[in-house]
This record gives sequence, structure tokens and C-alpha cells, in this order.
Amino acid sequence: MSLSNIRIVLVNPLYGGNVGSICRAMANMGLSDLVLVAPANLDMDEARMMAVAAKDILERRRVVGTLGEALADCGLAMGTTVRAGLYRAHVRTPREWTPRILEAARTGKVALVFGRENSGLTNEELALCTNLIQVPSSPDYPSLNLAQAVMVCCYELFVAEGTFVPPEELSPECAGATREHMFTMWREMLLEIGFMNEQKADHMMLGIRRIFGRNPLTDDDVRIMMGLARQVLWKVRDGAPPPPDKPGPESP
Amino acid sequence: MSLSNIRIVLVNPLYGGNVGSICRAMANMGLSDLVLVAPANLDMDEARMMAVAAKDILERRRVVGTLGEALADCGLAMGTTVRAGLYRAHVRTPREWTPRILEAARTGKVALVFGRENSGLTNEELALCTNLIQVPSSPDYPSLNLAQAVMVCCYELFVAEGTFVPPEELSPECAGATREHMFTMWREMLLEIGFMNEQKADHMMLGIRRIFGRNPLTDDDVRIMMGLARQVLWKVRDGAPPPPDKPGPESP
Repeated sequence: MSLSNIRIVLVNPLYGGNVGSICRAMANMGLSDLVLVAPANLDMDEARMMAVAAKDILERRRVVGTLGEALADCGLAMGTTVRAGLYRAHVRTPREWTPRILEAARTGKVALVFGRENSGLTNEELALCTNLIQVPSSPDYPSLNLAQAVMVCCYELFVAEGTFVPPEELSPECAGATREHMFTMWREMLLEIGFMNEQKADHMMLGIRRIFGRNPLTDDDVRIMMGLARQVLWKVRDGAPPPPDKPGPESP
Repeated sequence: MSLSNIRIVLVNPLYGGNVGSICRAMANMGLSDLVLVAPANLDMDEARMMAVAAKDILERRRVVGTLGEALADCGLAMGTTVRAGLYRAHVRTPREWTPRILEAARTGKVALVFGRENSGLTNEELALCTNLIQVPSSPDYPSLNLAQAVMVCCYELFVAEGTFVPPEELSPECAGATREHMFTMWREMLLEIGFMNEQKADHMMLGIRRIFGRNPLTDDDVRIMMGLARQVLWKVRDGAPPPPDKPGPESP
């Protein structure tokens, strides 16, 4: 697991709330190794409040005196910056760096280094980093909150690591024969209620097909739409209950 | 600009700090349309503090009584959820939905709907949404802070909108002839200082080539490495200053 080899390093963080938020963001994205370099006198009540269920990461944080100590056992050290300039020419986005970070984290420690809330990392601190990251942001307001910047970087790593399995459609896309059966029933229904006549039926059914064809249509969706047609036909014809082999409307 | 058509809707937000953080995240990612549905009695001092330079978005927020009002002029309404379950089967990640959202936002308003901090959106509220979003997160702690969830969604939209121009290398990758010239100078230097002898030179130069070949090498990089070799040769041979057509070491 590459993610367990990725360390978040905060240089001189000022606010306990941010540190707590970062613990939660790390837990959300499968990270757990937090190192603080010479933190300010942090409000730990606020840190615990913002960490919510990630207090274990907060409690297991390591505090060191210098950035060099925090990076001593790390291969890659990715420094974050919002500014371009000297030493900052070769910066890339989190998404661009992510494959390189995960590759390096397969065999060794990787640090993501974040600067102080008010002024970021100094040139001397950036020089200790092997590479530079810039989070994409609007030129009108490029400076992200510290915890937000950490979240974006961790999120990119978590998504790329690929352990998250997106939820899947529970119902498969319906087969062509089923869909055609539905259109046959709808045509019968629309004629029966006088919504269209035989002359205009083909043209109107193209419109109906367009509406249903614009997006995936699952077996469940088709069952609902066939049940609707069946129920309308039953209601307008004779009010007799549908025959037993044709069940009534389904609930979604 | 699609982003100006994308609205962030917060249903019953409880904490002013989160609302302020969301204003900042929106400004960072080029969004500005914020609607609050029946907010709690928010701590506005905290909201302004966390909004930092995005106070204009906070001041221009619209407050409505029901989610229906917030969505009245929206085409797509994307509801966010962390849970799977009834009504939640067809959920997708922000990255999967982003092209659809940007497409819809070219011609109309799109809402991204976020629930209360402690309990998310109700099934009734999710039913008012046209589609569902789930932010990828660790099964060990899937629940993101509200402002963090908003940031991830806005970040995906901003990146996909493609207005952010990543910083470029200021120096182009060096040409093969220049690189070979550098290796010739290094070979001469390494022989001169006795780091290798003629018998082992070819083998050692393969190692040197591997080190420099592993990553891009720019004109600037090569100039530094050629300057180094020139300076070593000068120092160990006679201490005479390098001829005027061969400048000394460059600063990075």
C-alpha cells in the first residue's frame, strides 16, 4: 500500500483547527503519517474538534525541530507553493505528480510539505524539497486554506491509488428486445388515450425514443415504464385488473 | 464560462466557519453563486474569518426557505451523499460527473447540493436532485468535512474547465548534441581527477548517463553541469582562469 508511505509535513503551522482538519482529510483519504515542524502553540481543543473521528492521527503526530529532520528518511519531498518565481519554475500540479509520488511510495517514504498559513514555505525550505507542487486555483484568489490544499493533494493520491470502488448500477442496462417491447406498449397506450393518431404515431414515437435514448435505461427503469403503460390501458379500457401474467406497476 | 453558471447550495448549514471556508474554496476555484437553504443561526464572525478574501461571495449569498426554491431555475441538480442505499444506486464520483455538469452549465444553471454537517441530505431532498455525487473516500472514515467536500467538487470542475494554465518549464529540454558535449566534458574531467581510468571509463560513463537520463534535462541544467566540469579541469590543471569564450559556473 503506497498510501501508508506518504507523510504529510506541516512547517510552523499556526492554527490547531487547521491541523485537526488535516487529520480528518488524511483519514478520509487513507493517509496517517503526520509530522509537524516547530508548530506554534496550537489550540489543541480546536484541533481535536476539527479532527472529529481522526483523533488517532492527531495523537500520533510527530513533532520535530527542523524540516531536515522531517525529511531525513524520505526519498521524494514534494514542496507546495502557490507562487511562481525563482526555484519555482519546475512546479507541476498534484494530478501531474501523483503517478511519480505513488511509484516512489511503493519502495520508500514520500513527504508532502506544506508551509505556514500566512506565508507558505521559504526559499530555503523549498530548496530542501526534491520537487514542487502547485494546486490549480483561480488567478483572482489563488491562495487555498492550508487544510484545503492538503485535502486536494491527498484526494488526488487516494483516487489514483485506486482502492476506492465507485458504486455500481444495481440494475444492468436493458436489452434491445425489452426496450422495443416497452416502445410497443407505449405506442399502444398513446393511441388508446388519443395522445396521437395513426398518421402521426411514427413521428411521435421518434420523439419518445429520443427522450428515453438520451441516457442509460436499466431493466428497472423499463419495468416502471411498461407498468405505467399497462396500467393506463387497463384503466381506460375496462377497469378490469390486469391478467395475472402481467403484473401491475412496480415501485421504484 | 460554465463556472459562473454553477451554484453551490447548502441545506441547513450549522456552522458559520464552514460557510466561510466554502466561500473561500469557491473563490479559489472560480465559482461565486452561493445559496443557503434555511441555515441555522450562523456565527457570521467566524464565517467572515474563514472566508478571508472571499467575503464578497459571503455577502452576496442568497438565503431561501426550501430546497425547491434554490433549484427552481436549475437544470441539473447534483445531490451529494456518502451513503449507498435506496435512491443512491446511481451515484457517481465528481470526476465522472464533471463533463456532464460543465456541458449543462454551458446553457443553464447547475446546482451542487450539500446537506447538513451532521446528517447530510434526507431522502426527500435527494429526490429533488436529478443526479447523485459521492466523493471517493476511505471506508474507514468516509465522511468529509462539509467545506472539504465542496472543495473537492469545485476543484474537479475548475481543473476540467481548463482555465488554469500550469506553469511551464522556462528552459527547454536540451538537444542531443548539447548533452553529448556535456558527457564528453565529464569524461575528460573524471579521467583527469582520477575518478576512473581509461579501462573503466566506458562502463562508468554508462552509469553517469543513466543518472542524467532518468529525468528531463534542460539547457539550464546542462549549462550548470558543463560549467562544473570546466571549472574542475581548470582548477586541477593550472589554476589559470577559463578562456573568455568558456564562461565559469552558472548560478541555478
